[in-house]
Amino acid sequence: MPHDLHPADSSLDAALARRYGTALSLPVETNDTIAGLLEHRSVRGYLPDALPEGTVELLVAAAQSAATSSNMQLWSVLAVEDKATLAKMAAMANNQKHIEIAPLNLLWLVDLSRAERMAETIGTEFPTLPYTETFMVAVIDAALAAQNAVVAAESLGLGTVYIGALRNQPEELAKLLGLPPHVMVAFGLCVGHPDPAQPSTVRPRLPQSVVLHRERYDTTHEAAGIADYENRFRTMQQAVGLPPSGWIARVIDRMGALKSMSGRDSMRSALAALGFPLK
Amino acid sequence: MPHDLHPADSSLDAALARRYGTALSLPVETNDTIAGLLEHRSVRGYLPDALPEGTVELLVAAAQSAATSSNMQLWSVLAVEDKATLAKMAAMANNQKHIEIAPLNLLWLVDLSRAERMAETIGTEFPTLPYTETFMVAVIDAALAAQNAVVAAESLGLGTVYIGALRNQPEELAKLLGLPPHVMVAFGLCVGHPDPAQPSTVRPRLPQSVVLHRERYDTTHEAAGIADYENRFRTMQQAVGLPPSGWIARVIDRMGALKSMSGRDSMRSALAALGFPLK
Repeated sequence: MPHDLHPADSSLDAALARRYGTALSLPVETNDTIAGLLEHRSVRGYLPDALPEGTVELLVAAAQSAATSSNMQLWSVLAVEDKATLAKMAAMANNQKHIEIAPLNLLWLVDLSRAERMAETIGTEFPTLPYTETFMVAVIDAALAAQNAVVAAESLGLGTVYIGALRNQPEELAKLLGLPPHVMVAFGLCVGHPDPAQPSTVRPRLPQSVVLHRERYDTTHEAAGIADYENRFRTMQQAVGLPPSGWIARVIDRMGALKSMSGRDSMRSALAALGFPLK
Repeated sequence: MPHDLHPADSSLDAALARRYGTALSLPVETNDTIAGLLEHRSVRGYLPDALPEGTVELLVAAAQSAATSSNMQLWSVLAVEDKATLAKMAAMANNQKHIEIAPLNLLWLVDLSRAERMAETIGTEFPTLPYTETFMVAVIDAALAAQNAVVAAESLGLGTVYIGALRNQPEELAKLLGLPPHVMVAFGLCVGHPDPAQPSTVRPRLPQSVVLHRERYDTTHEAAGIADYENRFRTMQQAVGLPPSGWIARVIDRMGALKSMSGRDSMRSALAALGFPLK
């Protein structure tokens, strides 16, 4: 692991403490792979340096190694390195500058068009294609694949950040990239060398008492867990020099008004226009 | 890595050859994490042995370390170990016996109910909740989290298999698990010790010429790539003692008739009933 991603204390206890903003000790063995997962942080500060030759293919091989429902492989990936295209994508995604600076953006595609072309070639039809369930299968499989690419990239010392804002203008983006009907960009992923001058830190997550349920759904510890988390989140914000406004305020900011959806409140009709009627 | 998951030849070239059913040589460095990703196979043969103490918590810590859109954390995970519940789940999922035999099933939940409870506590409303986009965010984040848990489990020598068939009867499953409105099971995940007497093998995937696009969507090499893959898939089927019926026949089997959806063609109305109007 390269210097800038190397935590000060690489023990499991220390990694879990960074992840939760509080001590969590588990009676388990660990390994380098798990250590890498626990150290994930989204990287928005990149060097412009090119990636080593073969990196895209290696990340795609990792992605394709993820499980895929009934081996149907209803997803594709589109690698964008062209600076003019990246600039247009950045403009569509709330002007996130890192989209232009990172040398690679991997666009993870919900792709039912390949299956449709196969059906045509065979001289049949796939009546399952317009269904909500089939769309969900493709979204889930694209996400499983993408996460494998992230894990692989980080293991090589590269940084990544998912770009959900590439769903802001799905039809315009489809046009830019030449996507046929029945294909959409689920999300983008910047990949590049992290800029050591713009270090990113591990963001603490909700306590397991809030997120993990046993046998049945149970909210007994939720309110106390969120209150604890709010404090830990403010502590993290102060530690990285941000105003300690807390997590709840951020959720309100994101979920409390339709305008924060940057146009994505029309996703349903955009999907229909792209060939996903969600039957 | 335990014996039964250990490939005969652990070089990158050999791993890529297993993954694609043909030689693929990349001029890159690799590492144990990437080697683990490339060796993934779904495991449906489990020993009944219990998992080491702390395993669930470690897998959940890995899952929570995945990126989550705007740190909203719109997912939860429900760990089921109770044999009576697992038996009911297996019955709902086309009687997949491994659901009962594996000691743990992790159910990955699209969970907008926590955000709704937060809004109530604050005395506000989140108008973004009923939108298709918000549902997509939660589905994607649940999948990213789950895949991290899979990578962590496999690094510990455990086996996993996703269970999409737990979407066959979403309302009944929600009732069984006590899920409140605005929560649904996206998919399940068996976790356990692989039974060495029932070894699983790497399934080859479509060639990168079919799945990976550069700069723009491009189907130039698709037909030839699928034809190659069909041959490789038949070779793999023969090698593991299956009839060499090919990949295309399997896709037709899965996509060519609504009955193969096992009831999931009513996902849209099931989602509405569970509190996801997909506005």
